[in-house]
Amino acid sequence: MEEKVVKIGIVGFGTVGAGVVKLINEQADAIAARTGLRLKVACVVDTDTKRERAVKLEKGILTDDIEKLLKDNSIKIAVELVGGTTFAKDIQLNMLKAGKDVVTANKALLAVHGSELYRTARQYGRCIAFEASCAGGVPIISGLRTGLIANQITAIYGILNGTSNYILSNMSSKGSAFAEALADAQKKGYAEADPKLDISGLDSAHKLAILSSLALGSQISLDDIYVEGIENVSQDDIRNGAEMGYVLKLLAICQRAGDGSVSLRVHPAFINNDNGLARVNGPFNAISIFASAAGEVMYYGRGAGMMPTASAVVSDIIDVAIGNSANTFNRMELKPQGSTNIKINKIDNLVSRFYIRIMCKDQAGVMAQWSKVLAENKISISGAIQHEGSGPKNTVPVVIATHSTPEKSINAALTGLARLDSTCGKPVCIRIVDIPEDKE
Amino acid sequence: MEEKVVKIGIVGFGTVGAGVVKLINEQADAIAARTGLRLKVACVVDTDTKRERAVKLEKGILTDDIEKLLKDNSIKIAVELVGGTTFAKDIQLNMLKAGKDVVTANKALLAVHGSELYRTARQYGRCIAFEASCAGGVPIISGLRTGLIANQITAIYGILNGTSNYILSNMSSKGSAFAEALADAQKKGYAEADPKLDISGLDSAHKLAILSSLALGSQISLDDIYVEGIENVSQDDIRNGAEMGYVLKLLAICQRAGDGSVSLRVHPAFINNDNGLARVNGPFNAISIFASAAGEVMYYGRGAGMMPTASAVVSDIIDVAIGNSANTFNRMELKPQGSTNIKINKIDNLVSRFYIRIMCKDQAGVMAQWSKVLAENKISISGAIQHEGSGPKNTVPVVIATHSTPEKSINAALTGLARLDSTCGKPVCIRIVDIPEDKE
Repeated sequence: MEEKVVKIGIVGFGTVGAGVVKLINEQADAIAARTGLRLKVACVVDTDTKRERAVKLEKGILTDDIEKLLKDNSIKIAVELVGGTTFAKDIQLNMLKAGKDVVTANKALLAVHGSELYRTARQYGRCIAFEASCAGGVPIISGLRTGLIANQITAIYGILNGTSNYILSNMSSKGSAFAEALADAQKKGYAEADPKLDISGLDSAHKLAILSSLALGSQISLDDIYVEGIENVSQDDIRNGAEMGYVLKLLAICQRAGDGSVSLRVHPAFINNDNGLARVNGPFNAISIFASAAGEVMYYGRGAGMMPTASAVVSDIIDVAIGNSANTFNRMELKPQGSTNIKINKIDNLVSRFYIRIMCKDQAGVMAQWSKVLAENKISISGAIQHEGSGPKNTVPVVIATHSTPEKSINAALTGLARLDSTCGKPVCIRIVDIPEDKE
Repeated sequence: MEEKVVKIGIVGFGTVGAGVVKLINEQADAIAARTGLRLKVACVVDTDTKRERAVKLEKGILTDDIEKLLKDNSIKIAVELVGGTTFAKDIQLNMLKAGKDVVTANKALLAVHGSELYRTARQYGRCIAFEASCAGGVPIISGLRTGLIANQITAIYGILNGTSNYILSNMSSKGSAFAEALADAQKKGYAEADPKLDISGLDSAHKLAILSSLALGSQISLDDIYVEGIENVSQDDIRNGAEMGYVLKLLAICQRAGDGSVSLRVHPAFINNDNGLARVNGPFNAISIFASAAGEVMYYGRGAGMMPTASAVVSDIIDVAIGNSANTFNRMELKPQGSTNIKINKIDNLVSRFYIRIMCKDQAGVMAQWSKVLAENKISISGAIQHEGSGPKNTVPVVIATHSTPEKSINAALTGLARLDSTCGKPVCIRIVDIPEDKE
């Protein structure tokens, strides 16, 4: 097959942008040998054209003028790696309007403005490829879109944010406090100076919006997803959970009920320590997909970082150049939610198991008090721990695991528990998620 | 988008064939809503048209005359689910010559006659899709071909045969003897009445030939793969390995060395019990891929069975109907091995760690004897166990784990050990595989 030159324009020459250039430099020959496509970075746009990067560009490639990229009709594939939901949106819209297919790692933008961008792409006969938007180098997008397309997806359980997972793993394995583990993550480059997007759960929610849209074939909005971050997680709770056989993870969950309604949520979750996801440590990501025919399929790998993300971006570039991305994009249109029979189950309607910790005064009658509150709310206790003399200043932590309970009942009970004379401070409550294991 | 009817012909109406029909029946509406493709099973060919199957077909669909399928020009996609390497080959060739794209789960056929089939497909302008050939419902083929295409694949470690893994898992968890675990697997439907293909490692080798061909971009022949099965695995060795922190798995391995040479092998392997693959139990499959940019990516799921395999077949049908399979097939031609710079490293050149068990007479001077043989062959011992009085009839099992050692030195040492007066029976030797873990 004759070699076909594929000219690429990139906007955003940060870590991932440099990774994409580096990967193309390194693998161009191998990719040409495998696919007949000769990838060439023809234009890189960044406001900062001076800073030293991990890779060198030939003279004339780097520019701060995006028009140079947009007006070059020999560039058919444009990569947006600016990030964020403001400039990036205009950049992608302009790329599409200039007749270019778009490759992007921008989960936030797709989660927030996906509908508009996809619509514009269709209008201009272009496509948007976004393998790099979720789970870095792990090909989860193509897994959902092609490999598992013949299945009804009944559930997704994902560890989608490496920063949070790194922090929680360190709190589990090293006994660190949250602040300490966060500082360590920042030092190692796994957390940004402003870690809010990651630790608030919002980044996971962006990714869940994209994955669940694909799984459900329907545009899922960020508003449909309940989000709770890991900012308030304490070492005490991680230790107590471990004693009960649980590991704490920031989980992104999409669960389809029998009636077709869907629960979408991101929150800290205790999961059984023999589940596959419990063993995903450090900055890694993993996603368990429950598919009606294939059963459980799990993906594991690096969810972020320069080269893993570049791996996904370049695979998308090739997919676009071959013509497969356009086929998939055109065939697998995500329906507006109103046009499908998907009903979102709000968090108030959740039924879950829960971990509760109350700091109680170390005095007579306390157990009778808190157990009465739970009984009044029809909450059944599956396990409880009260270690002698383990709390500060005449208090003792009481740790309870519940059987399946409606979220509303738990909230009522938490209010009741907080009001007790014997309770010090606000009770802590963390959901326990029993991930079904696909067994023989 | 207007609905497009996709007529499908299937040859082979066994378990997987029935699964494909069932899945299409169940998901036709959902697939049509997602992709605009209305899948219709138009013709099913089987020599047995009488037997009751798990699904019913409309009248006139089931036939024992393959010509009916071949001559129907409205059928553009033909699925070969006959299995084996004889009839199935002619069937696929005839399908291609009749102008049909082929979807297949037949790993043995592709491993043995892949080159000829691919060549014929190209000659007739058709494609062959084979996601179902490896790891059942786990989309590993598309992962290697598209998701990880921008990477140099440096290694693959796979648990690719569910039957063997079920047997080894049971031997580990229940302390069963091999024969007992095999009988249980047969009773549960995880092993065939004649289990040879699975337990000999040959089925894993077929799959490794396919996966490594994709990973290396070069046609790998079955002859390039060293194959050793699990038939001789004993409970003693599993228990001894466990004591040393190892789990026994039947591993399919593709390792690329720094000089571009490749080691391809299927054999029982002790792996560290904290490695992700060690936790893959029962009939499940898992594949760890080490990719130059993405790092370690692991896939896990059901590697066989009616519906998981059907999931992969139907996803391929859709991929073919959309046009993506043809794009991929045409672009990613596997080069004949001679035309690439891949050198196969034969097993004799392997350097590995090893587990050795010798049954020794329980008498003075024995350790001096066996340790001398190892020393003479420059084999360094990393660990050893000799439990008092644990062997039958005045013998004691001596268990040794070695540091990295050339296969040739081990073979020489095994010959030397067998010759010792103090050795009873043939020494047992199992490779220890240190799967690198991609850490922070």
